[in-house]
Amino acid sequence: MNSNSGGDFPRLSFNTRTVNSWSLKECVEGCARHDIPWIGPWRDQFDDIGVEEAARLIRDAGLKVSSLCRGGFFPASTREERDAAIEDNRKAIHEAATLGTDVLVMVNGGMAGNSIQEARKMVRNGIGAILPYAEERGVKIGIEPLHPAFAADRAVTASLEEANDLAEHFNSPWVGVVIDIYHVWWDAHVRREIERAGKSILGFHVNDWLVPNTNVLVGRGMMGDGVVNNRELREWVDAEGYDGPIEVEIFNEEIWSRDGDDVLAQMKERYLSHVL
Amino acid sequence: MNSNSGGDFPRLSFNTRTVNSWSLKECVEGCARHDIPWIGPWRDQFDDIGVEEAARLIRDAGLKVSSLCRGGFFPASTREERDAAIEDNRKAIHEAATLGTDVLVMVNGGMAGNSIQEARKMVRNGIGAILPYAEERGVKIGIEPLHPAFAADRAVTASLEEANDLAEHFNSPWVGVVIDIYHVWWDAHVRREIERAGKSILGFHVNDWLVPNTNVLVGRGMMGDGVVNNRELREWVDAEGYDGPIEVEIFNEEIWSRDGDDVLAQMKERYLSHVL
Repeated sequence: MNSNSGGDFPRLSFNTRTVNSWSLKECVEGCARHDIPWIGPWRDQFDDIGVEEAARLIRDAGLKVSSLCRGGFFPASTREERDAAIEDNRKAIHEAATLGTDVLVMVNGGMAGNSIQEARKMVRNGIGAILPYAEERGVKIGIEPLHPAFAADRAVTASLEEANDLAEHFNSPWVGVVIDIYHVWWDAHVRREIERAGKSILGFHVNDWLVPNTNVLVGRGMMGDGVVNNRELREWVDAEGYDGPIEVEIFNEEIWSRDGDDVLAQMKERYLSHVL
Repeated sequence: MNSNSGGDFPRLSFNTRTVNSWSLKECVEGCARHDIPWIGPWRDQFDDIGVEEAARLIRDAGLKVSSLCRGGFFPASTREERDAAIEDNRKAIHEAATLGTDVLVMVNGGMAGNSIQEARKMVRNGIGAILPYAEERGVKIGIEPLHPAFAADRAVTASLEEANDLAEHFNSPWVGVVIDIYHVWWDAHVRREIERAGKSILGFHVNDWLVPNTNVLVGRGMMGDGVVNNRELREWVDAEGYDGPIEVEIFNEEIWSRDGDDVLAQMKERYLSHVL
């Protein structure tokens, strides 16, 4: 087993979606090569090998898991589908615990044929249903508000204020928020809501908003290529006492077309110049 | 001069951008043919004929002008450009007054090379600079928050809460908000902010959010084709005492490719079935 201290990058985490073409094994090897101490895997990456093998791979490389992407997607048009979503979230909690991370990132899901108010109720009910198991397994539910452009089809939880409302509703140390600058940077009250989130901040993701934004889903930018002040937002988050991993999560077709090692090298450089 | 009472549609307004291929004259004639009592023109539509001629065209057809689109775009990278923007907004106020509408819709502008905080200051300063002239000419400044997807390049004013903050800052009967459901529907606190806006609501625009949304700028939907509950939002706005025109404003490439008369007919049908 290697030891990976992270060198100058003790908080840097590679969210594996940033290099979309790599398998989990390649992502783990990439982190080891680039001395990146944290990894944020996606569940579909270990469908084939199973979560125990994924955990072994990551552990053997000396990496820590910052969070697991992703639970959520609670709203559905039938009771059966909603129950299935809750069951799948229990499985995700088990996987997070097996991987040794205490944060499951929740993308709460879109309207799925419901009114937005009904869908929001389904989200509340869904989180309530899985909370006892999350607590039992020592996994925190990290509600990630998505950009309002995704309110209909990916996350009715569309602002940090709303994510904070939801976390407060549960008033539990096992429910908090994950802040991704892409989703919240535009908000005139983002600082107020970061302060309100305070100790319930469970994760922080960096990237950038490109101008023009040609594709809201897969047109996210590398830090420094867009208009977001990542450093300022990082300072506001840190000021609340958050000292956990900082994940670089970028969905970008151009970046996906590049060599993964180049992306990781640039990611470290931009993390130093635009985040730290 | 004709008289156009609007029949069953006394509040319906045709925002001319909905049929993008029509000249102002064609838009006016379309309203007359379809017995639509209100029109919401765009400034670039009378660049060629001049505002006096535009006013005459509209008046002669018996139409009323719900609002003029648009002022704003205050942030810029140089002092000269910011001064030019203020000058252009004064011109827009003159045009609104000439057309006989008391509402100038403001799309405040994007970052234009500034931090988002600086750009927001430029917006405040810009509105402050034109306010005395707006009052002198009897034209209200209707701040339209745009969808957060446009925060970088079109309107740093990206939520109804922020628009309300801005209107409250001026605390003037000459500054209010224009609510377009496309831009605000996703907000968990939209009802709270509509109530907060109260008597300062100066305009209401309807359309829809399509799923999937393939283009945030020009992929807006006809009422009923998407996921927004236009009727509920209209009821919340009306509950604050707003009884002014309801503009149909749709930027949609597919709708733009259709025959304008078909669009107006469908617009009336959908207004009845999904808004009233």
